[in-house]
Amino acid sequence: MFVPPDLKTAALAIAVSLSAALPTTGASGQSDPLPSWNDTAPKAAIVEFVEKASKKGSPDFVPEPERIAVFDNDGTLWIEHPMYVQLAFALDRVKAEAPNHPEWATTQPFQAALEGDMKALAAAGEKGLMELIMATHAGMTVTQFQEVVTDWIATERDPRFKKPYTELVYQPMLELLAYLRANGFKTFIVSGGGIEFMRPWSEKVYGIPPEQVVGSSIKTTFEMKDGAPTLFRLPQVNFIDDKTGKPVGIQQHIGRKPIAAFGNSDGDLEMLQWTTLADGARFGLIVHHTDAEREYAYDRKSQFGHLDKALDAAAINKWTVVDMKNDWKTIFPEH
Amino acid sequence: MFVPPDLKTAALAIAVSLSAALPTTGASGQSDPLPSWNDTAPKAAIVEFVEKASKKGSPDFVPEPERIAVFDNDGTLWIEHPMYVQLAFALDRVKAEAPNHPEWATTQPFQAALEGDMKALAAAGEKGLMELIMATHAGMTVTQFQEVVTDWIATERDPRFKKPYTELVYQPMLELLAYLRANGFKTFIVSGGGIEFMRPWSEKVYGIPPEQVVGSSIKTTFEMKDGAPTLFRLPQVNFIDDKTGKPVGIQQHIGRKPIAAFGNSDGDLEMLQWTTLADGARFGLIVHHTDAEREYAYDRKSQFGHLDKALDAAAINKWTVVDMKNDWKTIFPEH
Repeated sequence: MFVPPDLKTAALAIAVSLSAALPTTGASGQSDPLPSWNDTAPKAAIVEFVEKASKKGSPDFVPEPERIAVFDNDGTLWIEHPMYVQLAFALDRVKAEAPNHPEWATTQPFQAALEGDMKALAAAGEKGLMELIMATHAGMTVTQFQEVVTDWIATERDPRFKKPYTELVYQPMLELLAYLRANGFKTFIVSGGGIEFMRPWSEKVYGIPPEQVVGSSIKTTFEMKDGAPTLFRLPQVNFIDDKTGKPVGIQQHIGRKPIAAFGNSDGDLEMLQWTTLADGARFGLIVHHTDAEREYAYDRKSQFGHLDKALDAAAINKWTVVDMKNDWKTIFPEH
Repeated sequence: MFVPPDLKTAALAIAVSLSAALPTTGASGQSDPLPSWNDTAPKAAIVEFVEKASKKGSPDFVPEPERIAVFDNDGTLWIEHPMYVQLAFALDRVKAEAPNHPEWATTQPFQAALEGDMKALAAAGEKGLMELIMATHAGMTVTQFQEVVTDWIATERDPRFKKPYTELVYQPMLELLAYLRANGFKTFIVSGGGIEFMRPWSEKVYGIPPEQVVGSSIKTTFEMKDGAPTLFRLPQVNFIDDKTGKPVGIQQHIGRKPIAAFGNSDGDLEMLQWTTLADGARFGLIVHHTDAEREYAYDRKSQFGHLDKALDAAAINKWTVVDMKNDWKTIFPEH
């Protein structure tokens, strides 16, 4: 989340082409748990790992309570271009709150946010972005923030696909989440995004309950207000769940090492290392965005979802790399 | 955990009397899920709450994912006198590490810890206690600390009962945990004690997995050391999960409001307020230590498990108060 927006990546592609996902039946006659995955190497690697970890008698069998799988969110479970969804939320919130803050019209980075001046916004850098986050994510109760997020996510549309963001989640990853859970895995989100920005919709969209969401956070404070217990959100960073913060967040929230990790950017490198560089059944996977036609194509030069070191590390550590264009039959759910 | 030890409460009672727990069968012929609870008001209140929250068609029915129950640990699930178990651990660790720290022999609060001088230790106050915690809980990897705790908890014995601490858990509370889970509740520990001190044994002893343990923590840092991913424990406080920190810790880890909270001291007051002062089926319970013969009797004047404001609040808010002596048939598990 805490990356300055980039004009280049903000350019919207026009062509939209969603191929239909048809449930398929395998040679064995059993229905395919991953119908939106083509029969290429990543699908085979996933199935092989899940079977060796969950089949009793397998030399790499992992007891059910230890079958922990962690998923990055932006770019791994849902769309992150032309900008992180949470950044679009912050910019919208600045516009919504502007009438209460006349000074924003002439104060950066708020002026840039109000005028949609992405160049000035980029110039404000990480510091400017943090100012936007604090102004729009703090100064209210936890309950109030949940309501603001719930309203926004229900009504806003992605500028290119004209759909709610919660429909711009990756169908193959939804199937993967369900497949893992059907085999005794407990699935967690471990995202650089805000923990309270994801919780209001993660259960409905991903089947991941709030207590299995790990993310960045600001500080909160408890007080009794007129006899009512209140948790109030303060404009202070509590924890940044990105890069080296991801293993720290995993230990803090989950308390044991996952056996499978799924990411798409350098922000996930340390989570993948922490998860996979250990004994026993281990699985690491990187979603490589290679499909400009159906979604986006970006990696080493992108500011949102920057994938460089982690792509090199994937080759060295034998992590599975999903080539979105070739390995995914469908990108988004068909409703 | 962060309370100076008190000489008075360190006095050991001698009489030990464990009455046997016999499983009983109710008039309905169904086996009693809470056999170690006497048929007094607290048991009836628990059963009434669980039934109204979990029985479909009940006007106060709560959907299963929202059936979150939070439990304090020290004094609520296990013994906390003559001192917090984790303090006994810290004092033992000072002794074990003393050969590597000759300076401790003449430096407070380490000298006091080594000489068992509880008066000097109390004089060192909270600051001194934090120094002991940092010296014994940090400066190693997360994995190393887990091993140290696992070894210690397996071998050490409580001075009065001559049993491992993990056998000095409250049998009625073990039954309560199982009863709640059997009715679709998810049970969490929310303790002022160290999160990584509880996790190595919480699943085995309470059936609560590491990812459902919330507690105080020190900071950790991730690094790659000779190609191996490592989480290292730093001598810096990260979070104190006590008093107003408990609702904050609950929101941070669980992300939704519990519907039932169980505590025994003023450290649990805000957790009980946050949980119960809301609409719908809600339940708050305080374990009142009233049994000097079978365990300990303490409340308003005790430093470990100080119960004063929360006892007054219980009357006002209609929280259930367990009178340990009268309401519990058995205190500890019989093996």
